[in-house]
Amino acid sequence: MSRIAYVGGDYVPHRLAAVHIEDRGYQFSDGVYEVIAVVGGRLLDEERHLARLARSLAELRIAAPMSPAALKVVLREVVRRNGIGTGSVYLQVTRGEAPREHAFPRSARPMLVATARRSKPADPAVGERGVAVITIPDIRWRRCDIKSIGLLANVLGKQRAREAGAFEAWQVDDTGRITEGTSTNAWIVTGEGKLVTRAADSAILNGITRLALLDIASEQGFEFEERPFTVAEAKSAREAFLTSTTAELLPVVRIDDLPIGDGQPGPLSRQLRAFYLAHAAGAT
Amino acid sequence: MSRIAYVGGDYVPHRLAAVHIEDRGYQFSDGVYEVIAVVGGRLLDEERHLARLARSLAELRIAAPMSPAALKVVLREVVRRNGIGTGSVYLQVTRGEAPREHAFPRSARPMLVATARRSKPADPAVGERGVAVITIPDIRWRRCDIKSIGLLANVLGKQRAREAGAFEAWQVDDTGRITEGTSTNAWIVTGEGKLVTRAADSAILNGITRLALLDIASEQGFEFEERPFTVAEAKSAREAFLTSTTAELLPVVRIDDLPIGDGQPGPLSRQLRAFYLAHAAGAT
Repeated sequence: MSRIAYVGGDYVPHRLAAVHIEDRGYQFSDGVYEVIAVVGGRLLDEERHLARLARSLAELRIAAPMSPAALKVVLREVVRRNGIGTGSVYLQVTRGEAPREHAFPRSARPMLVATARRSKPADPAVGERGVAVITIPDIRWRRCDIKSIGLLANVLGKQRAREAGAFEAWQVDDTGRITEGTSTNAWIVTGEGKLVTRAADSAILNGITRLALLDIASEQGFEFEERPFTVAEAKSAREAFLTSTTAELLPVVRIDDLPIGDGQPGPLSRQLRAFYLAHAAGAT
Repeated sequence: MSRIAYVGGDYVPHRLAAVHIEDRGYQFSDGVYEVIAVVGGRLLDEERHLARLARSLAELRIAAPMSPAALKVVLREVVRRNGIGTGSVYLQVTRGEAPREHAFPRSARPMLVATARRSKPADPAVGERGVAVITIPDIRWRRCDIKSIGLLANVLGKQRAREAGAFEAWQVDDTGRITEGTSTNAWIVTGEGKLVTRAADSAILNGITRLALLDIASEQGFEFEERPFTVAEAKSAREAFLTSTTAELLPVVRIDDLPIGDGQPGPLSRQLRAFYLAHAAGAT
């Protein structure tokens, strides 16, 4: 089965899937995106992803390329045509094609691109073992609440993590507080056993997995607090972990070469991970 | 004559000029660009533009898509094929096409796209009349010295200027100091007649027109200083102006509804503008 992409109205072979060089996504990073997990052929937390997409578009005053109902049809069709059981759907909406000028074009038709890919189920061993993160200065723009394709700072940060042998880089604001990872949200468990993650301000993306986990924490009666925390607090935390659509929940066992807790995934992280995996499986 | 674009090795009709949806420029704004003025069919300050391009690429560790000599051939060919006398060449280099992952791909071939467009010679009336600017918070990332295609904050800023009836938005850092416009550098003339523009730190792009003007100031014996200046200082300045490849030098006669000086282009701005236009014309 050859891969198929959706590009501005057409289903095309992936290798031929192209956009115009004056698409504003290509020249100005003038667009937004979502990545939705596919579990058993179904889209996990789809409503929340589409709500966030609508918010991102509204913040940038990009018109929705189609109704939510029509978009759902396209996403399902991309999943179906690519025969995806476990994997993800990627979708991107840009302001469209227009002669290059910074200000919004008077007339441009938003461009929707969607692709799907298969992935092996996440390796449970990584979840058992945990991952290392490094900390780096947060050099991104001030509207990280918008899920824009302007990801160059994230790219550079992820590459730094990769070269440091770490899974992720946690970004640190000017006050020494962690904002989030380059593609994941950051969490700690305090000495008192309280779950802490930054509130969804303009310095972070309000992750869908983050939201799902806050629901779980609520339902299960875990104590939690949404507030910024410092690097020092993270390093002396009892536990730490990260969340994202593709990483799900991964315990963090090391920050900048310092072990967290006893250097093993903590009990609360394990418990929450199990709850989250059950939530994800429940989508089927 | 139909427009021709250069895309990754081929000269193609502009309307068909396309890049793959997994070009990292489209998904991550993982690329850089230059805009070079074409005057009498020749590229103005080409060496400086190519030197800056090389620097931007090196900062992002993107390999040059070809040698500077080969790049010059491509740019000339794009100018020639489009029959451009007065206009500009746009070129963009991205990290290339790769399956979507934040970190650098192990193998990807940098993608070069180049286009040219004709423009009427800049309207001298605008230079005579001057333009208005507004001030807005600088919400961009911390590496504005890299001429990346991650321009979404600039897009939003330029749009705000447009809607406020202004030509440009001057961006203001957390200390109340102006960094630069969304696509131009910012200058003032102090009460003592000294030319001031921000030093080329990581908060601004080191404009080629900015550099040319510093040369002119030097050669002509004008007093100048490279340092940040506040919004208050700009509003009480004797003169103000902005520079860029496409705007050249435009006097600023109004900042946030406050007239600068007597609300007319100042004498030093006029003089420098004349010198710059002579420099540009001298390229032919």
